[in-house]
This record gives sequence, C-alpha cells and structure tokens, in this order.
Amino acid sequence: MKTLDQDSVGLVPVVVQDEATRQVLMLGFANYEAIEKTKETGLATFWSRSRNELWVKGATSGNFLHVTSIRADCDDDALLFLATPDGPTCHTGATSCFDAV
Amino acid sequence: MKTLDQDSVGLVPVVVQDEATRQVLMLGFANYEAIEKTKETGLATFWSRSRNELWVKGATSGNFLHVTSIRADCDDDALLFLATPDGPTCHTGATSCFDAV
Repeated sequence: MKTLDQDSVGLVPVVVQDEATRQVLMLGFANYEAIEKTKETGLATFWSRSRNELWVKGATSGNFLHVTSIRADCDDDALLFLATPDGPTCHTGATSCFDAV
Repeated sequence: MKTLDQDSVGLVPVVVQDEATRQVLMLGFANYEAIEKTKETGLATFWSRSRNELWVKGATSGNFLHVTSIRADCDDDALLFLATPDGPTCHTGATSCFDAV
C-alpha cells in the first residue's frame, strides 16, 4: 500500500463508514503518522489541515471511532476506515457529518 | 451550501456511495463546475487533478454513476453523492475502488 509507505505519503482523504449500519460518518485527512497512530491505537486519528496537528477523533467529545479495518483505493490515494462509533460523530450531535443539519 | 457558491469553492473531496447497497464506491474531487455538471446531467462528474480537466465517470467505460442526492458535510468542505452505478465503478472491474485488489 503506497499510502502506508512513509517515503511517498502525503495527505490522503479518509472516508469513515460505520461498519454496522454502513452509514458514511465523516471525511478527514491523514498523513503517515495519523495512519500509523490509527493502526497502533485502533482509534481514528487524522491530520488537521487548519491546526497543523494530529487529532484523535473523540479526544474532546469522548465519541471515539474504533477502526476495525483500513482499506486503500485502487490508486492508493484515498483510504476507507470501517469503524464502530462510540456516539454521534458530528460536532452538531448528528450521527453523521453528512446528515442534513 | 458554501461548496456550491462559485465564489468560495475550491476543490472538495467527494465520496460516492451506492444508494441501494450503501457500499462506498470511490472518492473523487470536484470543483464548482463539476458539481454543477453533476446536478445538471445527473451523472457523477469530477475534476481530474492529474489531467486538470472535468471528467464524467463512465465516459470511457460506460459505467456511469447516476446521482440521486448530493449532501455536504457539516463544515461544507466535503460532499457525499448517493448514486446508482451502471456497472463496476473501479477500472479494475471491481464493484468498488476500495475492494481489496
């Protein structure tokens, strides 16, 4: 998986899908460090493009995303995390960031 | 929807999900023009970052993605297309670009 090769990785978009309901919960961006941290901890971790830092989804809200599977797409420039959420994923309290607000 | 405002739009990641099976089929990028074309034609249209041009998914393969719903995420920087695919989405012949190859 090219995206997991430290030398070649940039920032890749990550789709998070609820493993049970198959709802698309959110989209974030990850770099090599975020992907490694996700694999190591089992908690979805992203790279914040606005704050320029790693962030563990749920670190503030307590609504972590437990990642059970990581898949790359055919050209290795996007990832799909299958996950089990602890609670609502969106900061608005909605289950998904794509729910109509 | 800020992403649909021509003045403010950049390139946004677009998740395509099969409306019936809820499988995540692919991830592409869209600009204002691609989103407008998708709305106008009902066919998922993206902006190619490598070729710097609009591309209608399926224009070559015949496997179009018929978009029935477009949703923005909570901070308006990602989109979700719900779609009905004509055939395999991936150029490898797989249903999804995220299928293990």
